[in-house]
Amino acid sequence: MKKVLIIGAGRSSTCLIGYMEEKAEIYDWRITVADRDGGMLRDKVSERSRVIILDIFDEDQLKMEIEEADLVISLLPARFHPIVARACVELSKSMVTASYESSEIRALEKEAKERRLLFLNEMGVDPGLDHMSAMRVINQIREQGHEMVEFESFTGGLIAPESDDNPWHYKFTWNPRNVVIAGQGGPAKFLQEGKYKYIPYNRLFRRTEMIEIEGYGRFEGYANRDSLSYLEKYGLEGVKTIYRGTLRRPGFCRAWNVFVQLGATDDTYLMPGVENMTHRDFINSFLYYNEHDSVELKLFHYLHIDQDSDVIEKLKWLGIFDKTKIGLKEATPAQVLEHILKKKWQLSTDDKDMIAMWHKFIYKDRDTGEIKEKTSSLIVLGDDKVNTAMAKTVGLPLAIAAKMILTEEIKLSGVYIPTSREIYEPVLKELEDYGILFLESE
Amino acid sequence: MKKVLIIGAGRSSTCLIGYMEEKAEIYDWRITVADRDGGMLRDKVSERSRVIILDIFDEDQLKMEIEEADLVISLLPARFHPIVARACVELSKSMVTASYESSEIRALEKEAKERRLLFLNEMGVDPGLDHMSAMRVINQIREQGHEMVEFESFTGGLIAPESDDNPWHYKFTWNPRNVVIAGQGGPAKFLQEGKYKYIPYNRLFRRTEMIEIEGYGRFEGYANRDSLSYLEKYGLEGVKTIYRGTLRRPGFCRAWNVFVQLGATDDTYLMPGVENMTHRDFINSFLYYNEHDSVELKLFHYLHIDQDSDVIEKLKWLGIFDKTKIGLKEATPAQVLEHILKKKWQLSTDDKDMIAMWHKFIYKDRDTGEIKEKTSSLIVLGDDKVNTAMAKTVGLPLAIAAKMILTEEIKLSGVYIPTSREIYEPVLKELEDYGILFLESE
Repeated sequence: MKKVLIIGAGRSSTCLIGYMEEKAEIYDWRITVADRDGGMLRDKVSERSRVIILDIFDEDQLKMEIEEADLVISLLPARFHPIVARACVELSKSMVTASYESSEIRALEKEAKERRLLFLNEMGVDPGLDHMSAMRVINQIREQGHEMVEFESFTGGLIAPESDDNPWHYKFTWNPRNVVIAGQGGPAKFLQEGKYKYIPYNRLFRRTEMIEIEGYGRFEGYANRDSLSYLEKYGLEGVKTIYRGTLRRPGFCRAWNVFVQLGATDDTYLMPGVENMTHRDFINSFLYYNEHDSVELKLFHYLHIDQDSDVIEKLKWLGIFDKTKIGLKEATPAQVLEHILKKKWQLSTDDKDMIAMWHKFIYKDRDTGEIKEKTSSLIVLGDDKVNTAMAKTVGLPLAIAAKMILTEEIKLSGVYIPTSREIYEPVLKELEDYGILFLESE
Repeated sequence: MKKVLIIGAGRSSTCLIGYMEEKAEIYDWRITVADRDGGMLRDKVSERSRVIILDIFDEDQLKMEIEEADLVISLLPARFHPIVARACVELSKSMVTASYESSEIRALEKEAKERRLLFLNEMGVDPGLDHMSAMRVINQIREQGHEMVEFESFTGGLIAPESDDNPWHYKFTWNPRNVVIAGQGGPAKFLQEGKYKYIPYNRLFRRTEMIEIEGYGRFEGYANRDSLSYLEKYGLEGVKTIYRGTLRRPGFCRAWNVFVQLGATDDTYLMPGVENMTHRDFINSFLYYNEHDSVELKLFHYLHIDQDSDVIEKLKWLGIFDKTKIGLKEATPAQVLEHILKKKWQLSTDDKDMIAMWHKFIYKDRDTGEIKEKTSSLIVLGDDKVNTAMAKTVGLPLAIAAKMILTEEIKLSGVYIPTSREIYEPVLKELEDYGILFLESE
């Protein structure tokens, strides 16, 4: 009987736990789900599985639990993975995560290989599904002898059309903090027509690209982190364009830019006096002083927002001008903003979210030399507030990979992301059974 | 015979060395000037003094030299002061600097007091002269029983009207790197009419204040770092407004903002391919791709710069659109920009620079309850490219303080900035002999 330890039972864990429990019956596994917080744990896990409260900083307990397991799945926030990974190396256990491969994890490569362990990262939706679906097409193109020239890829965690009932066309479907600070920590970097391009944070939400996904309408994309690193990861050295982006509904970025310009997304300092501040006071602290003008007018004037702009409706709808107490004791601007947004961007019980992904591949035909284009797109809708598209697309690829490691269908050792055919092919195939299906068109 | 060790002989050291050598003859001191780079050292120092090449990371040599000295004056970049300061504590020597007091230096308070040492920081122009001249007026106002209500203070290192021959009305008169990265590292913070206000870096150069100094015309000021910390330093708790700013000539900030918006002042990442890039390529790397449009038009469109804007003249004059090789091997955007600017913003041999300082004090009259205003302003002109106003205003306060420590006119021990009357009064008085004289008006 194989044993699986799942660490972290947050928002994205439902589908993963569901899949693993279903397969546990077939393959006779024993599942343990561990979380720091025991409160909601039992609701997410069937009686057949074990639940434990685990503090990963309690080294003895962490090691005892890992020692017991045949495979560790970590759904913790990315910064905690190295702690678990080092314990896994020590106890000779493989581990899978849905997070970006960090340099700390990368550094375990040699030991992992020596001990024949697999550390498989970036196995969620973005990063994860994006790698797998892109690599499948890129490899097809190359196998046919054509030459890749451009690659663009966009992913967004959004709200399904039927639940899209606010002027931002957005609600939180994953960690709200990451939405608020998205784009900080260095400029977006990409390659366009052979030129390196850089977009600083303060321009990021004004340099959007428009894309359309058939049946789902228009989206806007803003550049996501360092696309240049994917030249090597995808073996695309020599292409003229590589660009990875994040999708929102049109108009989101222009309005979000207001918070960026104000400085309201800054997470680096604590604001004094938050305890006694209202939403309105918070916004006013980023505006010049004038005893007569309203906070609204000062803001619109400061950022050149026309009186008839849709940005105004979006801002007012959020309640940022309200004289409502913020309700936090001590916070950074980003924490205050997150707190205000959470009051509005909550999923209702019946709300369905949506994952949208879109890739564009430009290649030079082997025979004719013609420049041709392929696209690949994915839409996944959530079932409800709990079984979200986010939970499916993060959890299922991870769960399928975990199954394949346990059943030894995947036999790699070392530190990997799912750009290898032996990972992406079976995973993408099985995902189709769950309605996660890419539409490719030429 | 007392011995003085001066570490660092850069741009601002000339007047300091000159003053110390002059006083050395009177008081029979022995001066040693130490620098990492021996090249220009002898030109700056008379035969009477000793020059040495000193690497502060060579702990043995550093300690040997400090051991020999009665007082250490550090003109090193601020980040190196703690290394020197810790050696000074260990060897029981006092130290003066012109830099902001860091938390590392602050932490030496207890040991300094126990060993009866003085660590006197912020003894240059800004910080330095600004503290001293402001505290003199603030204390006068309070001694007369009035109540301080508002305090604003601006300082700028600029170019004298007679040498002001470029559209930016600016040349480098101190460390160019600090000019390029000015304003980064957290928002500007200040208090206005009882409200905390924050300006993020991306808005800093658009939130300027206009001020006028009689006989020298108009200036614009942008907010400088964290003004809130001066509430305590100046004993101004309870005032409604506190604002510290940096002066430029009108129009500078709006044009400089172009570089901020582009991301060209970013010092956090190395750009690939700088070796083969021209000025024009550098600017283009922050703009969208379009095979037909010029870099100029793309930039003007991107940042909404009208065809008749003075910003265009400023940018063109800098040569940022030229197809000139940058001439660096590897660099961050900030380093590339500094390199381009240095080609243009150099002082010519006969150029005179200018230090401008302006304080405004608003107080409530003790008897009438009336709100009254005082201002205090300073203009210092340089003699030439070497004996700059910057070198005078940074070096002379530091040198005078050093003299007063050596002659025991200052007998404090602990970690200080010159907000104490026993420092600022004699220093301001002696500075008048050197033409550094504040004009106060009611």
